Amino acid sequence: MAAAICFVRHGQSEWNADNLFTGWADPPLTTLGKNEAAAGATYMWKEELNFDVAYTSELTRAQQTLDIVLKLIDQEDITVHKSWRLNERMYGALQGLNKKETVLKYGDDQVKEWRRSYSTPPPPVDLDSEYWPGNINRYAHVPAADIPLSECLKDTVERTLPYWDAAVVPALERGKTVLIAAHGNSIRGMLKMLDAIPDEDIVGLEIPTGVPLLYHLDADQKPLKDPRSFGLLSGAFLGDPEEIKAAQAKVAAQTKVHTDESPAEVEERILAYAQGKEN
Amino acid sequence: MAAAICFVRHGQSEWNADNLFTGWADPPLTTLGKNEAAAGATYMWKEELNFDVAYTSELTRAQQTLDIVLKLIDQEDITVHKSWRLNERMYGALQGLNKKETVLKYGDDQVKEWRRSYSTPPPPVDLDSEYWPGNINRYAHVPAADIPLSECLKDTVERTLPYWDAAVVPALERGKTVLIAAHGNSIRGMLKMLDAIPDEDIVGLEIPTGVPLLYHLDADQKPLKDPRSFGLLSGAFLGDPEEIKAAQAKVAAQTKVHTDESPAEVEERILAYAQGKEN
Repeated sequence: MAAAICFVRHGQSEWNADNLFTGWADPPLTTLGKNEAAAGATYMWKEELNFDVAYTSELTRAQQTLDIVLKLIDQEDITVHKSWRLNERMYGALQGLNKKETVLKYGDDQVKEWRRSYSTPPPPVDLDSEYWPGNINRYAHVPAADIPLSECLKDTVERTLPYWDAAVVPALERGKTVLIAAHGNSIRGMLKMLDAIPDEDIVGLEIPTGVPLLYHLDADQKPLKDPRSFGLLSGAFLGDPEEIKAAQAKVAAQTKVHTDESPAEVEERILAYAQGKEN
Repeated sequence: MAAAICFVRHGQSEWNADNLFTGWADPPLTTLGKNEAAAGATYMWKEELNFDVAYTSELTRAQQTLDIVLKLIDQEDITVHKSWRLNERMYGALQGLNKKETVLKYGDDQVKEWRRSYSTPPPPVDLDSEYWPGNINRYAHVPAADIPLSECLKDTVERTLPYWDAAVVPALERGKTVLIAAHGNSIRGMLKMLDAIPDEDIVGLEIPTGVPLLYHLDADQKPLKDPRSFGLLSGAFLGDPEEIKAAQAKVAAQTKVHTDESPAEVEERILAYAQGKEN
């Protein structure tokens, strides 16, 4: 009855490919994005994960990712819950803008601040914009006061948390194996809860796309340190050792003050673990 | 921007056909049940309803009803929200029992009390029963304290209400046209809210299966009295005048103390309205 939870961040969407701020806009995955999901699925299958329940956002690219994973691991029959609270950070007036144009319009420092600060939201979207979620029937059920005009990462974390507590934690308390297909920032919110990651560190934590991140939990739903883990995360990325190494180098660089191991040492430990599993 | 809400109660399931207490057990619709849904859909289409958002329970028979309706009215693209809070009353240890056997086992008076009282729940289901929702992964996301062992109608109303407030009312406040495919007792709960129906009356209110019940609301989400309404309900049943008449006779008999019109007078008024619409 030990619970486990596996996160997967969706891969490339059409707007990622076009370098546009996406947020709650709803482009589908590109072919690359679909293949990223498939690669993640293959590693979940190799890990012999059997999911009891899955969660995703109200956005197509996360739902497509989940669909592809469940199809490929032959687990399409499990119950899927969709919530706007697992959506990507709502990027306000930046949604739909080209990232280069945004830098020209607002200046590099300002855009960096919006992307990297924990608590500075971008400018709000207009209430008559097609991007204001209150104009989209998919969000008709969301109380008006909860519909964002723009979000900083702190806002995203704070609106993800009630769903985590209300709908994900109960499954973990019942010892279930949970799959979550979501977005960079909503996954950050959940990892922040699981691994008690401080505000100043969560901003720099880049979750690789399409690479499953698996946590095993103890009886109190606290994460167990996986032998393949590194940096601030107790969980293990599932994938090709070279891919993991690349992800690890990125994460380690972002969180270097918090680990006594050098990136090379971490790499060595993880490769040793991977080789041990193969023998 | 005037909101509207249309309820449809699922028709015959396989267990209805076998005369078993169903509750949260999950039999599919029979062919009759599917055709009941289709008949309701046709009247929604004739009423020219264009839905913005739909809600249903976690149970197959309500979801099938919604699927059939949305297919037949060509509105399959709207967002559908599923919640356990819209499930049928949880019938505890009676689930899976034949209604006659139950009377033999517990006595006629006791069974009537369970079926007709507002606040007497049937015996609880065993925690190791296949019918305890805590043993079903579909309910893995529900906090343990909220998983019923058995429900009286009052319990069902009380667990439906938070979802009504949190997820349905926001859509109504935004002037949306809402479709809800659900169950006798969860619909009772919502009608109780809309029409402020007293406890002692809600127990006797039988919602006909497959017959859409349409409410138009004012700017404060209060129901407008439909010229086709009768009894305690402000909304209108959509259907063949003969079917409506039968439904009306039933409802009027149950609620006779609350109307000054005789069933014959109500029938005359509704038929006059229907004829006026046809001219």
